[in-house]
Amino acid sequence: MKFNNWNVHISPTAILGKNVKIGDDTSILDNVVIGDNAIICNNCIIGEPISDYYEDPKYTNPKTIIGSGSLIRSHTIIYSGSTIGNHFSTGHRVTIRENMKIGNHCRIGTLSDLQGFSELGDYCWLHSNVHIGQQSKIGNFVFIYPYTVFTNDPHPPSNICIGPTVDDYTQIAVGAILLPRVKLGKHVLVGAQAVVGKDVADYQLVVGNPAKPIKDVRDLISRETGKSHYPWPYNFERGMPWKDIGFDKWENIHHK
Amino acid sequence: MKFNNWNVHISPTAILGKNVKIGDDTSILDNVVIGDNAIICNNCIIGEPISDYYEDPKYTNPKTIIGSGSLIRSHTIIYSGSTIGNHFSTGHRVTIRENMKIGNHCRIGTLSDLQGFSELGDYCWLHSNVHIGQQSKIGNFVFIYPYTVFTNDPHPPSNICIGPTVDDYTQIAVGAILLPRVKLGKHVLVGAQAVVGKDVADYQLVVGNPAKPIKDVRDLISRETGKSHYPWPYNFERGMPWKDIGFDKWENIHHK
Amino acid sequence: MKFNNWNVHISPTAILGKNVKIGDDTSILDNVVIGDNAIICNNCIIGEPISDYYEDPKYTNPKTIIGSGSLIRSHTIIYSGSTIGNHFSTGHRVTIRENMKIGNHCRIGTLSDLQGFSELGDYCWLHSNVHIGQQSKIGNFVFIYPYTVFTNDPHPPSNICIGPTVDDYTQIAVGAILLPRVKLGKHVLVGAQAVVGKDVADYQLVVGNPAKPIKDVRDLISRETGKSHYPWPYNFERGMPWKDIGFDKWENIHHK
Repeated sequence: MKFNNWNVHISPTAILGKNVKIGDDTSILDNVVIGDNAIICNNCIIGEPISDYYEDPKYTNPKTIIGSGSLIRSHTIIYSGSTIGNHFSTGHRVTIRENMKIGNHCRIGTLSDLQGFSELGDYCWLHSNVHIGQQSKIGNFVFIYPYTVFTNDPHPPSNICIGPTVDDYTQIAVGAILLPRVKLGKHVLVGAQAVVGKDVADYQLVVGNPAKPIKDVRDLISRETGKSHYPWPYNFERGMPWKDIGFDKWENIHHK
Repeated sequence: MKFNNWNVHISPTAILGKNVKIGDDTSILDNVVIGDNAIICNNCIIGEPISDYYEDPKYTNPKTIIGSGSLIRSHTIIYSGSTIGNHFSTGHRVTIRENMKIGNHCRIGTLSDLQGFSELGDYCWLHSNVHIGQQSKIGNFVFIYPYTVFTNDPHPPSNICIGPTVDDYTQIAVGAILLPRVKLGKHVLVGAQAVVGKDVADYQLVVGNPAKPIKDVRDLISRETGKSHYPWPYNFERGMPWKDIGFDKWENIHHK
Repeated sequence: MKFNNWNVHISPTAILGKNVKIGDDTSILDNVVIGDNAIICNNCIIGEPISDYYEDPKYTNPKTIIGSGSLIRSHTIIYSGSTIGNHFSTGHRVTIRENMKIGNHCRIGTLSDLQGFSELGDYCWLHSNVHIGQQSKIGNFVFIYPYTVFTNDPHPPSNICIGPTVDDYTQIAVGAILLPRVKLGKHVLVGAQAVVGKDVADYQLVVGNPAKPIKDVRDLISRETGKSHYPWPYNFERGMPWKDIGFDKWENIHHK
């Protein structure tokens, strides 16, 4: 229904793996490499040239890599010069600029805007409309909810660019703002609409503007179960590598 | 000027009413039904397949219904499996996922992102960049202003999904966040950037993070008139069914 | 790579300057005028008709002007009836409605949504995902950061529409909301996620919800330099007209 090869353009220098599907009205530009079994839906641009293209007559598009088994939904723009792992998926209208390094099994939601020059580990899930400024470093299993913004300029406008750093398993709820330079530990929970300007230690829940630590996440009581949902990997395994074996066993095998 | 039938694709199983216009670069996919006199502008996808499509070789697109007299502006994506009433209109780049039930005379603004599995009554106006998470229930005459987010997971990430419920005539100002499970009564006014975690009674104005009721909306004094603008249906009738007859008379006829 | 003249449509009444490039899948509609050396990337619509088009059989598209040396990135929609200066640039998926007056050297970031009927001076930089409601007035050298919203209805929903006014050099940080009618002076700094409901005098830093002035920006101490970064034109000249000559000298020449 969607893969009719209408108005599809694939550069002669692009390399497509086995069984790759390209949607209608999509362009795959120079030096793009797409892994086996990936699906690129309609109206996408993969390998969008960086700014130099408009000025340099000798411009060559940097290499873009998208891993195998990925699903890129419609109207997504991925710049050239980014490297993205396997089993990547996006919603619609995602924008990913150059010099991103994205691990395996990541998901980026509709309308999210990754400004490039940043790193995401494995299994990061960014929901709709997340904005990641340049020079951000995000670990593994970090989930970021809609309308969250990662900033990087401490005195706007300046030439300083230092994004936030977020460690593994941390959850950042809806509408939060991470100010430049801030470091969040592991298993942190950032509350809805928190403005985080100071570093946050492992396992802290921070809320408010300015965000303050109010509790250890392990002491939060769930209305449903009467005990804490956190650390969440013990209570959530959909899509996670510890599915069916449990977090402890998986951690023992893989991280010790 | 915009309806030249360039690069338009209409599935043989789509059913278009009388006098329907389809814009350039738009695709109408399988089992879409569009009512009389509707206009679908350019670069839209109507009947976008749900996730099963990518996995199930026997996939059939669920039925999508868009009512008569609707105006869908460009770059909008409407998934298959949603039912939308008459006189619907959207801005640009709207995303509406599957299993939405939308009443008559609704308007959804540019960049708004409806995640599906939710209900809107009649005459709901969502302005630009509103995000409605799954399992939300929205009554009639509810207006929602830009950058408002409806959430649904009380302990992210979990498998619980319980969205907010909003009753008739309620107004939700810019940048507000409705937390999971919250119930808002009728004629509520949510202030700009409020984070609403507790239920709100009819006619309350709530502000802040966490949002607290501070006043009955009927006691708000307008700088322009020296009396309250609320309940707003007595003071606003543009596009409303009580236009020219007044809210009391209309209510007597239709709701008593 | 991107300018292959595939699926490009240019109205016979459009006027293109010398050396203008038009990207694939882009439409230039009636009565659009584009200055010399401008680049309009792929999938754009320039001269999108206003609402009357759908109702008035005698509709004529108002004139749209885009200045020379502009760079409009992909998926951008610019309505007819706006006048935009030279050296304008946009990110992706920008929406600009009718009756905007935009000066020279302005930049509008990815996903930003300008609702029309507003003014921007020269050298305004709006980053990603900024929402400017109707009837806003923005001076020169005003920088606005992501997820900021300019509102205009003091009692939603009403028929009153009075946007904010922002004077030269003012900086509005991430996630701020400007309430209707508010006036910001020169060299103001609005903190992240501030909700500004009262007028702000020149050189004030305002923070919080509701926003309150807490300091003169000239008294802010930079962690990097030990002195204030503000007024910022003394410390930032990238892309600014005082580059290489300094702000004082430039101001003496041009503004006294």
